[in-house]
Amino acid sequence: FQELAKDSLRTDIRHTSKGFQFTSADNKFQLQVAGRLQLRFATPMDQDPETYNDFTSEDQNVFKINRARLKVGGHAYQPWLKYYFEYDLSVNRLLDFRVMVEKWPWLKFKAGQWKIEYTRERSISSGKQQMLERSLINRAFTLDRQQGVSVFGRIDQGGLADFNYHLSVLTGTGLGAKENDDKKLMYVGKVFWNVLGDGVDISGSDLVHYERPHASLAIAAATNTSPYTRFSSSGGGELVGFEDGTNGQYQVKQWVWETALKYKSFSWQSEVHRKYILNHENNIHTELQGFYVQGGYVLNHQAKEQGRPLFELAGRYSYYEPRVNLPQNSQEEYGVAFNCFFNEHLNKLTADVTYFDFDELTLSREISQWRFRVQYDISF
Amino acid sequence: FQELAKDSLRTDIRHTSKGFQFTSADNKFQLQVAGRLQLRFATPMDQDPETYNDFTSEDQNVFKINRARLKVGGHAYQPWLKYYFEYDLSVNRLLDFRVMVEKWPWLKFKAGQWKIEYTRERSISSGKQQMLERSLINRAFTLDRQQGVSVFGRIDQGGLADFNYHLSVLTGTGLGAKENDDKKLMYVGKVFWNVLGDGVDISGSDLVHYERPHASLAIAAATNTSPYTRFSSSGGGELVGFEDGTNGQYQVKQWVWETALKYKSFSWQSEVHRKYILNHENNIHTELQGFYVQGGYVLNHQAKEQGRPLFELAGRYSYYEPRVNLPQNSQEEYGVAFNCFFNEHLNKLTADVTYFDFDELTLSREISQWRFRVQYDISF
Amino acid sequence: FQELAKDSLRTDIRHTSKGFQFTSADNKFQLQVAGRLQLRFATPMDQDPETYNDFTSEDQNVFKINRARLKVGGHAYQPWLKYYFEYDLSVNRLLDFRVMVEKWPWLKFKAGQWKIEYTRERSISSGKQQMLERSLINRAFTLDRQQGVSVFGRIDQGGLADFNYHLSVLTGTGLGAKENDDKKLMYVGKVFWNVLGDGVDISGSDLVHYERPHASLAIAAATNTSPYTRFSSSGGGELVGFEDGTNGQYQVKQWVWETALKYKSFSWQSEVHRKYILNHENNIHTELQGFYVQGGYVLNHQAKEQGRPLFELAGRYSYYEPRVNLPQNSQEEYGVAFNCFFNEHLNKLTADVTYFDFDELTLSREISQWRFRVQYDISF
Repeated sequence: FQELAKDSLRTDIRHTSKGFQFTSADNKFQLQVAGRLQLRFATPMDQDPETYNDFTSEDQNVFKINRARLKVGGHAYQPWLKYYFEYDLSVNRLLDFRVMVEKWPWLKFKAGQWKIEYTRERSISSGKQQMLERSLINRAFTLDRQQGVSVFGRIDQGGLADFNYHLSVLTGTGLGAKENDDKKLMYVGKVFWNVLGDGVDISGSDLVHYERPHASLAIAAATNTSPYTRFSSSGGGELVGFEDGTNGQYQVKQWVWETALKYKSFSWQSEVHRKYILNHENNIHTELQGFYVQGGYVLNHQAKEQGRPLFELAGRYSYYEPRVNLPQNSQEEYGVAFNCFFNEHLNKLTADVTYFDFDELTLSREISQWRFRVQYDISF
Repeated sequence: FQELAKDSLRTDIRHTSKGFQFTSADNKFQLQVAGRLQLRFATPMDQDPETYNDFTSEDQNVFKINRARLKVGGHAYQPWLKYYFEYDLSVNRLLDFRVMVEKWPWLKFKAGQWKIEYTRERSISSGKQQMLERSLINRAFTLDRQQGVSVFGRIDQGGLADFNYHLSVLTGTGLGAKENDDKKLMYVGKVFWNVLGDGVDISGSDLVHYERPHASLAIAAATNTSPYTRFSSSGGGELVGFEDGTNGQYQVKQWVWETALKYKSFSWQSEVHRKYILNHENNIHTELQGFYVQGGYVLNHQAKEQGRPLFELAGRYSYYEPRVNLPQNSQEEYGVAFNCFFNEHLNKLTADVTYFDFDELTLSREISQWRFRVQYDISF
Repeated sequence: FQELAKDSLRTDIRHTSKGFQFTSADNKFQLQVAGRLQLRFATPMDQDPETYNDFTSEDQNVFKINRARLKVGGHAYQPWLKYYFEYDLSVNRLLDFRVMVEKWPWLKFKAGQWKIEYTRERSISSGKQQMLERSLINRAFTLDRQQGVSVFGRIDQGGLADFNYHLSVLTGTGLGAKENDDKKLMYVGKVFWNVLGDGVDISGSDLVHYERPHASLAIAAATNTSPYTRFSSSGGGELVGFEDGTNGQYQVKQWVWETALKYKSFSWQSEVHRKYILNHENNIHTELQGFYVQGGYVLNHQAKEQGRPLFELAGRYSYYEPRVNLPQNSQEEYGVAFNCFFNEHLNKLTADVTYFDFDELTLSREISQWRFRVQYDISF
């Protein structure tokens, strides 16, 4: 028993921002276990409308568990051999499961399934968002989660040419796929230039109150051939106006450029997207574009030292053209959110008001609607 | 390393009735992890019959994993900010996920998904039942799990007017629903009057051998408009004789009154139900009623002190009228159960024998059947 | 607080080959939590072909999460009352959930759902295989996971008649079934004769470098009546050439005999199968047979002491006759695998090359194909 007690002493256990953490005495093994619950009330609907007809469906008052996550991470055998998985308990879906070799800062490897580094708003965890939810244009442009391998790292850290890179090769048939449709894979590349400071961490809001500006510029591009024209956390699917695809039917190329800044309680981010879809069945090209700009300001950053909640006001404008050659048809989202951070992003209340304005002038019609939501998000 | 060891010391770890429990030194964070497995053998069938035809289907001998639960609970940031989730691994279903603010005994808040406080037998965990399973009438009257918010508490604790209350507002479309069908919500209220002692804890059997009687009376009522006429742990559905509903088709009002008592190894509980369903499509009203009475006695309460198993004999009678205006049609369940508690409800073996007697005199037919089951239930 | 610290001391926590392990001071409760991830790349397909037509489908390059497991085991109330469950997060399936009473080595009991002790290659965990995956004949002959009860043990340990036995009675409708189709159950028996040494542990490859040979012979037999002609980890199904069954349609009897050996880095195993299917609908008897032989050798067993990876070369030949009365129709698999064990089976990289050769001479056709795969498997 003396022995047992000594061994027990050597296992380090503590609660961290990633949940309870267990570390073996030799630091060869580490396990972190955390949960997250997101509760949401919405009226008259929750999902962003996609088409004109989504506006006219019946009003709802809905209260629901929107996300219920189990997160397990750590390392095994070596401190640089890391693993992470995340499971959504409410929809029974394995979201992330990846292994990372992070021995050198400039050359890291990742394999498994995860949110491919492509757009900033998708990469930010749903629990660390500034607004209540991602923007209207996320649906059309995200690559979401894919299965594959990636090489990534950071070069010239702290220098003038300080940048992060991610190069990924993926099956390209979305989350949970057990097969590829053909021989063709998805290729994705992204480069961040950390213009000022240490780059901008992948989370919304400036809760640190950075005294020096942190800023980054990023560009990313991707190509894929698959039955799908879009991806979401339920896997591959089709954008409005595209029929269900067959193997290799849709060849998609797309790019995005982004900005991000955090400075003295102010935070900013933007994305500009373009996407080209070639339908191999009828040889029709389709071009889509969109962008959003988003900013927020923490109203009482001094409260943090006193252990009191932080309040933030944030806003976003999104613009989406489903067909670049029909610019009279557009979708706009105007959103304002108010955050109350009890324990930063780990325990917070968010309310948002959104105004949607859809123009379908080719059909001589337009429509608009307000939406109100409240959300509570807690990690433990 | 010295530091690590000290930190490790400060995290308190112990096995409790809720599984292994981890508590941070400042008691701001606590995590409990437990599992439960319920194995069942049944012949000639397991499920209670619902209609005449269920009796005539082929006999079965079935051995199965009936429930396989993962339970995680605890608190985060504050001892009074609690969370709990429960997942059924065998049917891949998130059962509970809720957050509770329990700062004051008389005013507590709960949000998420859980078994709404409506009937005693449904509120009692399937692992803490006195009989092997809930009664015949549970299917018709339970509200089961819903998503929403609740305010609850206990007033005048220990006084003459000692009571517990629960008021809930819910989406009303059952477990796992991601949308409401319309603007209408479900409203539920329940009040317990703790007539004697501290009220009756929400579990079957008197394994404590209370020297003074604990008794409570309760009434509850609920109203909802949805496509459903009943709820179960697989979500909303329809009672026999009701077609699949459309949005807002069924308006349901219902009430129940209950008694419960535990005293010197004897335990008792009863429920009397009535339910009114208005079908908005054809304006037809339907009225259902039912009740059960249940009692049990621990035969050898002295054995507990010696660490030996406790034995209990229990019985239940249930009566259900699917249509109050057709009292010649009724369903009856006579059940006897024998429990062997190795470690109270946490490790027990139960055998039951049930006799079903269904009268459908409007169709000039009646039918009856015996059923035998054995069940092993272990929590760890 | 002094008390807390003392209690905490008493809970023993360590990382083991079964993950982080928590043991209460009195050893009455133990919990082990582990995860496993298996990533696979395959071209031009991953699954073994079943029929001639599977060869001609389109080529794929697929990278995927092949297995993602959560494993929880331990004991509760007594050191000999054990539990274990395993869940696959990528397909949302409860694989194992069983309780074991292991008080006496010669008489143990098991109840729940698990991989019934029938064939060696199926019993070996997918994380402890010598080859990258099980053989071509596994699909036709495995009983896979079933729900039921078992009695097992080891007799005359270390003596001449040293053997292990397993006798199981099961519902016989496969993993996850909630009902039996009829009154008939599945019966399975298996006996191992530990010819030399302590028998052969249920894992591939000799990573121990046994100085004395360990060898065993085994025979097993099973009978079942159900709607199914085969079982897999997705439950019951039908072999090629059998229509979907009705309740009690297929009566199956089958047997296998096996050999296994581990000695000085060399390992060997083989299985010979026969299976008889009687279709009660048309009274047609079908007889199937097959076998495989498999061997491997660890090339650098000395490396283990120096903490360097072990390398192993292994090969397998499988032969399957879907109809014994049509011996001109046969399926063959020739496989070679190379293993790199970073931390034995817990962290390893495997590559394999397989050549399939299918003869359907009754239709005057034959076809063959190569396949290449790489797999990374990590437990933590």
